[in-house]
Amino acid sequence: MDRDWVLNVLETIAGYSRGETGITRLALAEEEIQARAYVTDIMQKMGMTIRVDAIGNIIGRLEGTDTAAAPVIVGSHLDSVPEGGRYDGVLGVVAGLAAIRRIQKDGHTKHPLELIIFTAEESSRFGFATMGSKAMAGVADIKAWSKAKDPQGISFMEALSAAGFQPDKIESASRVGEPIHSFIELHIEQGPVLEDAGLAIGVVEAIAAPTRLKIKVEGTPGHSGTTPMDSREDALVTAAQIILAVREVALSRYGEGTVGTVGNIKAHPGVMNVIPGLAELWVDIRGVNHESIVETLQELKDEISIITEAEGTTVSIEVLTSDKPVTLHPTIINSLEAACKDLKAPYKRMNSGAGHDAMHMASICPTGMIFIPCARGISHNPEESAAPDDIMTGVDVLTRTMRSLAE
Amino acid sequence: MDRDWVLNVLETIAGYSRGETGITRLALAEEEIQARAYVTDIMQKMGMTIRVDAIGNIIGRLEGTDTAAAPVIVGSHLDSVPEGGRYDGVLGVVAGLAAIRRIQKDGHTKHPLELIIFTAEESSRFGFATMGSKAMAGVADIKAWSKAKDPQGISFMEALSAAGFQPDKIESASRVGEPIHSFIELHIEQGPVLEDAGLAIGVVEAIAAPTRLKIKVEGTPGHSGTTPMDSREDALVTAAQIILAVREVALSRYGEGTVGTVGNIKAHPGVMNVIPGLAELWVDIRGVNHESIVETLQELKDEISIITEAEGTTVSIEVLTSDKPVTLHPTIINSLEAACKDLKAPYKRMNSGAGHDAMHMASICPTGMIFIPCARGISHNPEESAAPDDIMTGVDVLTRTMRSLAE
Repeated sequence: MDRDWVLNVLETIAGYSRGETGITRLALAEEEIQARAYVTDIMQKMGMTIRVDAIGNIIGRLEGTDTAAAPVIVGSHLDSVPEGGRYDGVLGVVAGLAAIRRIQKDGHTKHPLELIIFTAEESSRFGFATMGSKAMAGVADIKAWSKAKDPQGISFMEALSAAGFQPDKIESASRVGEPIHSFIELHIEQGPVLEDAGLAIGVVEAIAAPTRLKIKVEGTPGHSGTTPMDSREDALVTAAQIILAVREVALSRYGEGTVGTVGNIKAHPGVMNVIPGLAELWVDIRGVNHESIVETLQELKDEISIITEAEGTTVSIEVLTSDKPVTLHPTIINSLEAACKDLKAPYKRMNSGAGHDAMHMASICPTGMIFIPCARGISHNPEESAAPDDIMTGVDVLTRTMRSLAE
Repeated sequence: MDRDWVLNVLETIAGYSRGETGITRLALAEEEIQARAYVTDIMQKMGMTIRVDAIGNIIGRLEGTDTAAAPVIVGSHLDSVPEGGRYDGVLGVVAGLAAIRRIQKDGHTKHPLELIIFTAEESSRFGFATMGSKAMAGVADIKAWSKAKDPQGISFMEALSAAGFQPDKIESASRVGEPIHSFIELHIEQGPVLEDAGLAIGVVEAIAAPTRLKIKVEGTPGHSGTTPMDSREDALVTAAQIILAVREVALSRYGEGTVGTVGNIKAHPGVMNVIPGLAELWVDIRGVNHESIVETLQELKDEISIITEAEGTTVSIEVLTSDKPVTLHPTIINSLEAACKDLKAPYKRMNSGAGHDAMHMASICPTGMIFIPCARGISHNPEESAAPDDIMTGVDVLTRTMRSLAE
């Protein structure tokens, strides 16, 4: 049994962390560089060749019997959010290691196998997410990334240089046009669906994309003691109704897999004796059905018009990002589903509400994702937890699928 | 006509200000000390004697014919909020000067007349409001005030010393037990009631007191993309319903003069991809009817229970302050009303939603307040504005009332 080996590698990587609460292993920080070295060392001992691209993506490769065949790739990331958990990203890397280790024991496959550790999947340090996989998919935003700095003022480009990578050659990390057989990422679900349903595996069909809005409500500031209730134009009261409208509209679209959240709010001037004249809201709307997102947005705008008409306030909506959802490849989905059936692993097809490196890999090769349950759906939190049985079922499904794709 | 004189004094005081936007004349700052000196000089030239108490309240006095008679006092303050207006406080001081100047021309009254410039009416600099009048009313909170500092780290006590006052003798500023005939304060309304009704004068019957709450809502943080809409415990969604409940409950109490405002809100962690697990609200509830405030609070708590029960969130309510409303003196109210009638000044009896120095003077002597309209009810803002005609009507009513009280 390689169960102990998997849990031991997970435990060792959890040791590369700063601070006392949860896991803090920010992109390109000392702890992440150490974790990368640890996994690289394992890959080398397994006889894999190592290549590091300009943005620091680490690509371990085990050659197949057909030197002309395209690689079957597995991968995820080792960086974490501040005070995050042990499994987000790491589990995909360790499951990939375990799968290749098992396949290797049975001899060589036809196709080469690759394991990728992507750079800066979390946006926590530099403000941009999935930077490594974006670069590999040829969609690096060099202009914006050149200005990216961490809260200490260290730029992304400086951090890449300091780690020995090549910030001036990020474009060379692109694998667009290169033959790639397939890409699979295993990840904790980061939601409660599998746990609630008592299932071991989620076969991901689509990855939601966020549409992010900044909504600015303008009312009229006034003295909180002297302005009669019926002659107020309170920006925060309008904002409160928008928060509830976001929920109502998203609830009505529930069957379409679209969710809506107001993650932050600010009231101005924000003092007790002044009616807020200005309120700002930051809204995140996600789904896997692009049409549903578009309709949700339109419905929300209609609701906001009704609210502001009644309140005498004005609203401006700025679209910060608006990405299209990603549909994963039917061949890989079918292959993952077949593996679940063969292994009698209880599974369901589902969508991913969170973004992943797989989202970008899907634009350059047939891509699939495996979810395993995590306790109470909690992630990006010290309480992030995954059961060893579920982890090993995930490794089983990943191994079987990679083997069948690589043969 | 002394209209030009009044407008000229107001204009000169407006010149004692820092910065380019509106009026910034913080308590005990250089600009306020200069404005105090300017008004003191005017009083001295009018033959008034000047006394400055330990907390820096300036008391100008014009003796009456009966040396044993108690003084008729008028007063307000010269300090402003940052980027405030020209009239809040200042108008009460200048109207007092003008009234005493007029009365003086007709010879001496029986009662002495006093004009008081109170120290630190605005809480902007040191976090405490109406400090001078509190000290005069014998309710100085020396313990809390000893710790008060401005944002630059200068303590209230240091600022008093620097201005030549006596921080170690603040208690001596109390006039509790001293015979005082009456106190009147003229002030801009800081609300839209008089302007909307087309009236020149408000005769204040009561001053509202704020009850201030900090409400903490705890939900469960979660990933905004992966947590289904129907399994969320979103603290911000609960907070939004509380904001609307504050308004609904206050609207239902409208006839009782009670108002409710949520002035500030914070969501935690306050990022786009996390459902807020914690939200904080700062609530201000005011009225002139203590029973109504108590009932409003109870009704709000009942509403909050219903909301949290439905949302699966928990709420804690901390009462930050809870003062009792102040009823002004019927004799002064009647005297002010008689003056309005004699002068054919259109007026109404009304309440003050904002706090004033008069609130504390009311605990040591019969006290009244005169409101004049301000444009669109705006105050604490560079756009604060009062019409010269309304200002002079206010001076007329003040003069007539003071004269009749002092005779």
